[in-house]
Amino acid sequence: MSPFTGSASRTEKWRHLRLTLDSGVATVTLARPDKLNALTFGAYADLRDLLPELARDGSVRALVLGGEGRGFCSGGDVDDIIGATLAMDTGRLLDFNRMTGQVVRGLRECPFPVIAAVHGVAAGAGAVLALAADFRVADPTARFAFLFTRVGLSGGDMGAAYLLPRVVGLGHATRLLMLGEPVRAPEAERIGLISQLAEEGGAPDAALALARRLAAGPALAHAQTKALLTAELDMPLAAAVELDAATQALLMNSADYAEFHAAFTQKRAPMWRGR
Amino acid sequence: MSPFTGSASRTEKWRHLRLTLDSGVATVTLARPDKLNALTFGAYADLRDLLPELARDGSVRALVLGGEGRGFCSGGDVDDIIGATLAMDTGRLLDFNRMTGQVVRGLRECPFPVIAAVHGVAAGAGAVLALAADFRVADPTARFAFLFTRVGLSGGDMGAAYLLPRVVGLGHATRLLMLGEPVRAPEAERIGLISQLAEEGGAPDAALALARRLAAGPALAHAQTKALLTAELDMPLAAAVELDAATQALLMNSADYAEFHAAFTQKRAPMWRGR
Amino acid sequence: MSPFTGSASRTEKWRHLRLTLDSGVATVTLARPDKLNALTFGAYADLRDLLPELARDGSVRALVLGGEGRGFCSGGDVDDIIGATLAMDTGRLLDFNRMTGQVVRGLRECPFPVIAAVHGVAAGAGAVLALAADFRVADPTARFAFLFTRVGLSGGDMGAAYLLPRVVGLGHATRLLMLGEPVRAPEAERIGLISQLAEEGGAPDAALALARRLAAGPALAHAQTKALLTAELDMPLAAAVELDAATQALLMNSADYAEFHAAFTQKRAPMWRGR
Repeated sequence: MSPFTGSASRTEKWRHLRLTLDSGVATVTLARPDKLNALTFGAYADLRDLLPELARDGSVRALVLGGEGRGFCSGGDVDDIIGATLAMDTGRLLDFNRMTGQVVRGLRECPFPVIAAVHGVAAGAGAVLALAADFRVADPTARFAFLFTRVGLSGGDMGAAYLLPRVVGLGHATRLLMLGEPVRAPEAERIGLISQLAEEGGAPDAALALARRLAAGPALAHAQTKALLTAELDMPLAAAVELDAATQALLMNSADYAEFHAAFTQKRAPMWRGR
Repeated sequence: MSPFTGSASRTEKWRHLRLTLDSGVATVTLARPDKLNALTFGAYADLRDLLPELARDGSVRALVLGGEGRGFCSGGDVDDIIGATLAMDTGRLLDFNRMTGQVVRGLRECPFPVIAAVHGVAAGAGAVLALAADFRVADPTARFAFLFTRVGLSGGDMGAAYLLPRVVGLGHATRLLMLGEPVRAPEAERIGLISQLAEEGGAPDAALALARRLAAGPALAHAQTKALLTAELDMPLAAAVELDAATQALLMNSADYAEFHAAFTQKRAPMWRGR
Repeated sequence: MSPFTGSASRTEKWRHLRLTLDSGVATVTLARPDKLNALTFGAYADLRDLLPELARDGSVRALVLGGEGRGFCSGGDVDDIIGATLAMDTGRLLDFNRMTGQVVRGLRECPFPVIAAVHGVAAGAGAVLALAADFRVADPTARFAFLFTRVGLSGGDMGAAYLLPRVVGLGHATRLLMLGEPVRAPEAERIGLISQLAEEGGAPDAALALARRLAAGPALAHAQTKALLTAELDMPLAAAVELDAATQALLMNSADYAEFHAAFTQKRAPMWRGR
């Protein structure tokens, strides 16, 4: 338990997603397979609340985000969300869209790597959840579709117009966000949208293996790598170099850095403690 | 006619380019085929003035930019421009280079997608015009050459040193801008410089088909997607997420979003109105 | 000799690297082949001091950075650096990491293109040196490994978390920096990390040929192209367009621009003077 724990209690039960914790690996599963894991207000709210809660907890070193059934996530539910938003006033609409944006910020800012395990459809908000992850482990059935314009909305949803050009370049990003066409696994791999291609049906296992490897490794170093990648997209070179210097000076006092040197000297594998 | 129309009159005749308007699609053709559509002061000035005029007009939902004859555009005319600039004083040189930069800003900031239809040579300023478009529909004869250093100038011309790294990455961009070598269609496609490859001779038709599809679709959603892609290159993640939230809240009050839901419920195709 | 020379004397002898100067081309060789050119405090300090000294000198128009022996550079020496940093206090650690960052800033900010000639291993800080170059000319034996997390440190070292996403995109950069796995030449070429692939054993010659070509060309135009590519990563579009305009207005008064026009008119090759 972190000493930086206040009065806030942990959520007893996440009602809109499935969470398991094992040896530093959190697995979050979107589990509404009859609806292709379409997101509801409750699912967005749980994702928004879960990520900072896991960050406060301090024991999570990697997170796998996957979907049960035929696909990863078909995005916002047409009935539960699109229908409902048509009846909302301006303030409520802003609240909703800020909530979904908070989920993406949570994924980018949580202090552990996030691995999306993608099979089948990753559409709309589902595609952005995968995009906001640090790794996209996908199998050949994966197809990404940023189909916001198909429902009359902006392709820039939940940070997609910020993130996608930085992952695949502005040309591909414009095409994907403006047209909303599906990108299948071969193209997704070619343009840099897939981090690791798994065998068909193998995305969850491959994502879990990667998460376990990250969790068993120098987890503080991984967390800082993620934090710098996220922050330095928004910083000039000189500031980035200074942030790197301060970060490495900090980590050169860490247990894992000393352990690496001891292990190297003793010609054995390091025993990482993640601090 | 937009209510936000003041005293400025519409240009009666564009003397340095050809403009046609049809069902929300503007087609701009560089039409100096005997000179490979080399740009003159007049052509730059017309492009600078045309884009905000079309934006004010409000009826344009997509724009195709192409070139007549053997190629797209060979860039600034060696006689008419390079020769003339050698006789200019400092203030006049700055005026000229600001004008060309305004063309690129016009392409990036106009509220409709721009599709460059590229065949044959797209060189110098011609390559940058294509680069500043949202889509580059090119046929196998297309070759891009950012040949500014070949005339003793900086590869960073008209925003090229800003745009190209964001489209193809810093490594390729450095090579292309520093050396000015031609990039042929296969490489251009591989590195993300081509959005859509057309059959030989088919770039104008493919570009027009894409423009018609965009114009007939949820054009306000497309316009906002473009605006966010452009703006969010220059914003940190947190600000981008907030801009997305405000934009989606706005569009959730749009006619097209309600129409999507009505059409979905009635199991029919949406009839987009572009607002 | 530049008129902007003060009291600082030129370094007589670089003790931790090998420097040759020939016709505007500086060749810097990491020459500790028995240690795979592992970097020492002295080598970092020499690289930090050399780049601004060459910039002040004014005669260098291109720089080749290579490694003697079996590979390019294996990164910081485990004994000389990792061992030593374990005994340093906080201020000293910051000094060390700022020094390494200064090397990268020197590579990005020096007023001539830098060409890394890479064969064999480019690991840790060696991979970042190559990354910070303008061109990476590599042969098929090249393998890049950003292995900072393998020693318990952040993958964001010496600007790597800033530079790598801008060269290969955020997805590949996250994978490379977080996992520290080697990237071999075919993948490095595919994702844009290699600028030019040379024949096996041919990286030094190919890099030198490119440097000579750059040095014999419009070197001021090359220098400004580099400066704009570096600066415009950190600028919004409107500012970049303005910087381009001022730069081109400046260069339109240069000797090389006039020479291009004269040569073109006289149907001969330009004789570049680099100013």
